[in-house]
Amino acid sequence: MDTRPIGVIDSGLGGLTAVRRMMRIMPEEDIIYFGDTGRVPYGTRSKETVIKYTKQDIAFLRTFDIKAIVVACGTMSSAALELISGEYDIPIIGVVRSASQKAAALTKNKKIGVIATQGTITSGAYTRVIGEYLKDTEIYEKACPLFVPLVENGRFRKGDLVVEEVVREYLTPIKESGADTLILGCTHYPLLFDVISDFLGEKTSLVDSGAESAEYARSVLKMTEKQAPLGRKGRIRYFVSDSPESFTGYASLFLGEAGEYGAGYVDIEKF
Amino acid sequence: MDTRPIGVIDSGLGGLTAVRRMMRIMPEEDIIYFGDTGRVPYGTRSKETVIKYTKQDIAFLRTFDIKAIVVACGTMSSAALELISGEYDIPIIGVVRSASQKAAALTKNKKIGVIATQGTITSGAYTRVIGEYLKDTEIYEKACPLFVPLVENGRFRKGDLVVEEVVREYLTPIKESGADTLILGCTHYPLLFDVISDFLGEKTSLVDSGAESAEYARSVLKMTEKQAPLGRKGRIRYFVSDSPESFTGYASLFLGEAGEYGAGYVDIEKF
Repeated sequence: MDTRPIGVIDSGLGGLTAVRRMMRIMPEEDIIYFGDTGRVPYGTRSKETVIKYTKQDIAFLRTFDIKAIVVACGTMSSAALELISGEYDIPIIGVVRSASQKAAALTKNKKIGVIATQGTITSGAYTRVIGEYLKDTEIYEKACPLFVPLVENGRFRKGDLVVEEVVREYLTPIKESGADTLILGCTHYPLLFDVISDFLGEKTSLVDSGAESAEYARSVLKMTEKQAPLGRKGRIRYFVSDSPESFTGYASLFLGEAGEYGAGYVDIEKF
Repeated sequence: MDTRPIGVIDSGLGGLTAVRRMMRIMPEEDIIYFGDTGRVPYGTRSKETVIKYTKQDIAFLRTFDIKAIVVACGTMSSAALELISGEYDIPIIGVVRSASQKAAALTKNKKIGVIATQGTITSGAYTRVIGEYLKDTEIYEKACPLFVPLVENGRFRKGDLVVEEVVREYLTPIKESGADTLILGCTHYPLLFDVISDFLGEKTSLVDSGAESAEYARSVLKMTEKQAPLGRKGRIRYFVSDSPESFTGYASLFLGEAGEYGAGYVDIEKF
């Protein structure tokens, strides 16, 4: 038993899709969330910059006595995690491994599509990690650089002409590949679930990388006997690096439930 | 006569559209350009964050002995400039005043459209400054939050379905207003010149705010007798806050001329 909080970081607010699943499957856990809204997006930045920012984000989380870190961001997970996870003495769980394991378990025709930011695709991390779980798999990777700005601007609903056109453009090669499983390799993408699912059809399984990282974190805590006692009511605290003023609106969007969500401001450059 | 360099700052690389004009109209001047590519975009961030970042960007420029600063970014110019320009002892020229003056001189029917980032539109800076030059003007402001990510992803050409649809959506109210002049209030937007011009038709004059800030800077230097001697060949140095690796490609895009452009790296958080 361990009632210390779990830390969750993301480049912005997409990581709240992981928190959403955590609240559902382990409501007994305390969570500290940090979203780097002052420097979002990470997906178009260089590897060096992503590593630097990730270290600062983790340094802030470590000012709390946390028992594990969920890196709920595809770009950070693919560019920085393998390099830096050895530097820390608590489990660090990323979305790449969590989603890859799930996709390898789901696919029947061994054809897996991966969509993510440019940084994640360039890293080749998904192809590498899926290969650890399932040999001889055909993997179709596609960078979707406009998805994050679209979602951040509240543009992700069916019937939005721009969104539907961008989805059609990015996902046509995946559709033509015949992949039966698609990893949404960026934690912003679950908001586009309906439009993507409509375009690809029901036969394609979509893997929500944020949600999978929550599932993975639960397994890790269980195996190491670090879970909080069942029946407990966990407390969630949010922190951001831009003004917290607009936080409530966006949090409602990503958490899938309207509510009053307060956030604290962090001067992340000091870490 | 003054051969000290002119400093130019932008949230990213859009400000190079101002440098492009400076190279043409004052080739004798040295220029130091800083683009905050590690934290771009500014247009969706809070005013407090934009002010903080702007001060850091200027602090970096001031490590050189510069004679003036061109703030070649609509968001910085509208959110931070009036507040902070009193703190410095050299002229600071922003795009808002430069473009407003030009639009006021151009309009015949006293109907002016302004397109810019969300931050700029929220500030109301253009409406305020245009009012100083021309009374009883109808001003139609419209935030175009997807233009920066589109341009940054190289999506700005005629025939691009997504770009044309987004332009149609954002500019229909401007077209319907009957404005005869449109300020491109963000230095990324000149790359969309052809698509916008096609949509609005030839009768609408487009004001390129980056280019106007270059013209304005030249007037200020002339009036204060701080110009470099004519016939001199100015030197331009570029600095960025993300890895400079991809700089050449983007610089060619914004400067409108292919070439080998090198940039130095700046750890901007230290300023």
